[in-house]
Amino acid sequence: MNTSPLLITMGDAAGIGPEIIVRAFSAGRAAGCVVVGDLAVMRRATALWPDRPLPLALIDTPGDAASLPPGCLPLLQPARLPGGLAELPFGRIDGRNGAAAALCIEQAVAWVLAGAAAGVVTAPLHKEALASAGVDFPGHTEMLQALAARGGEPPPVRMMLANDQLRVVLVTIHMSLRRAIDALSFDAVLQTLRITHRALLAFGIAAPRLGVAGLNPHAGEGGLFGDEELQIIAPAVAAACAEGIDARGPFAPDTVFMRARDAMGHPGEFDAVVAMTHDHGLIPVKYLGVEQGVNVTLGLPFVRTSPDHGTAFDIAGRGVADEASLVAALRMARRLAGLPPS
Amino acid sequence: MNTSPLLITMGDAAGIGPEIIVRAFSAGRAAGCVVVGDLAVMRRATALWPDRPLPLALIDTPGDAASLPPGCLPLLQPARLPGGLAELPFGRIDGRNGAAAALCIEQAVAWVLAGAAAGVVTAPLHKEALASAGVDFPGHTEMLQALAARGGEPPPVRMMLANDQLRVVLVTIHMSLRRAIDALSFDAVLQTLRITHRALLAFGIAAPRLGVAGLNPHAGEGGLFGDEELQIIAPAVAAACAEGIDARGPFAPDTVFMRARDAMGHPGEFDAVVAMTHDHGLIPVKYLGVEQGVNVTLGLPFVRTSPDHGTAFDIAGRGVADEASLVAALRMARRLAGLPPS
Repeated sequence: MNTSPLLITMGDAAGIGPEIIVRAFSAGRAAGCVVVGDLAVMRRATALWPDRPLPLALIDTPGDAASLPPGCLPLLQPARLPGGLAELPFGRIDGRNGAAAALCIEQAVAWVLAGAAAGVVTAPLHKEALASAGVDFPGHTEMLQALAARGGEPPPVRMMLANDQLRVVLVTIHMSLRRAIDALSFDAVLQTLRITHRALLAFGIAAPRLGVAGLNPHAGEGGLFGDEELQIIAPAVAAACAEGIDARGPFAPDTVFMRARDAMGHPGEFDAVVAMTHDHGLIPVKYLGVEQGVNVTLGLPFVRTSPDHGTAFDIAGRGVADEASLVAALRMARRLAGLPPS
Repeated sequence: MNTSPLLITMGDAAGIGPEIIVRAFSAGRAAGCVVVGDLAVMRRATALWPDRPLPLALIDTPGDAASLPPGCLPLLQPARLPGGLAELPFGRIDGRNGAAAALCIEQAVAWVLAGAAAGVVTAPLHKEALASAGVDFPGHTEMLQALAARGGEPPPVRMMLANDQLRVVLVTIHMSLRRAIDALSFDAVLQTLRITHRALLAFGIAAPRLGVAGLNPHAGEGGLFGDEELQIIAPAVAAACAEGIDARGPFAPDTVFMRARDAMGHPGEFDAVVAMTHDHGLIPVKYLGVEQGVNVTLGLPFVRTSPDHGTAFDIAGRGVADEASLVAALRMARRLAGLPPS
């Protein structure tokens, strides 16, 4: 059983990241976790609840957390963080917050690649703050991919969104729907199936059942409503099956998620659904409430999860943000990393 | 208060239509309804439950139903129905069943256009059986549109799918995703908003709130992930607002349906969501189970609803089909037609 800590990066300091981290610790839902962030920013977050003091313990390596008394928040502060972050206003894009968020992620990945941590859970960052800092990645996933490559070829990764009822893995993500259709290929679908299969095995599912959604209405209705199912998706499913992967489909997008939904009295037919487009996959995962969703990056050489929401600049600093999705991300990361449940 | 009957067309006789109609009557959920169908086919359906006799009463006009004793099934049998339908096997495509289904629809529309009926609820038909009969429509909607035109220009119609939590109206339906993107236009979106607004008013909602889903991930992220939101959807929403329609968006497709979901402890932000594509709209409506869904054709000069499922040839004739969606379709039609609830 793995016993190294999970690292939680604080995300954009002007967003809700620091406060949901504090709430998760205060609620006792972050045992065995270490925060990578700025001391003053985390102090500002704990000060939102003056009646519930949460001591911060600055440590030098993730392993130091093991010798701390329970009930405190272990903090790794990367060198070179910009000063004065805790004086910047909430809810505003600032390159200094972007730079700090990026440094925390770099530091966390360095620890996890060095074997000193079991995985990384990332609080939300702000894309534009990142860009203001001159950090050339559209988001976490791409940055983690580059860091994992250590200068070499970035590993192919896929985004999985999961809640208690449904796991969805996306073939395409952040591009226009037109470009997403153009980007579909036999290789992209087959690689997604392979990555998903391996990830579910690592998740502890002995014989993962993958359902594959089509692209077009009624999965193309035999070619009448588009031929991507016949030309691309079905051949990729067949190739995956030939490799021993239990993949079925392509099925009509409007019913495959319902069929996979695993709920009381409604056992799911599939352990995950592979979706061709961002919104085919995310609409059903988010439909019952985003607070339950977890984002998992599959294909990295380490465990990475994150809550399924953004920085919520509109409510940041008010102590009203809900930590449920972060707590779910921690729970998922523990399971993926083979850590005991909190 | 309207007191004319609702007409229920029997659909394809080899499918589950006749038996779910019988179940709805036996359960007392079809009071005030008249079936348009074939006597022998409906008799075969009632015979599936020999211990629960349901007398059939052949009538000549919808109004005749008012003088029947309660507890029987009033039936209008169109002239010119093919003979021997009840001897055809269940679960097989047959042009005679397609022809009969089409005749029942024509007859029902004639009655409702003549003012003798309050609306039409259609049991499922089979597209290929229809085609085998030489009926040149891909489905109900197009046939009803043509019948409503009475030889003139067919009225623009839109498909609404609704359950207890969510109403969705689709701008595009049965075409490839590529073609659906090409088919999006200012006029198509604006017309959908107008039709939806009028339909919700007729539904008894005094000030309908429409949420509009984008086409692209994150509703285009300001043009980064596609420009249909900026070029087409936002201008159509603005034009609708200028006409006094409360339309908002375009919003990210992955969260607008969740925001509109109206459930215990989760009041919906919108009375309906207008979706650009078939599956963006249908994935969330169907996610919690198709048996609750109702299909409503908006824009026709009469009320028309149908269950949100097909002929289910695989289980037809066994008496196991669930009538819940038909019952929901009857309830919705009653409400739209201003009839008292059953």
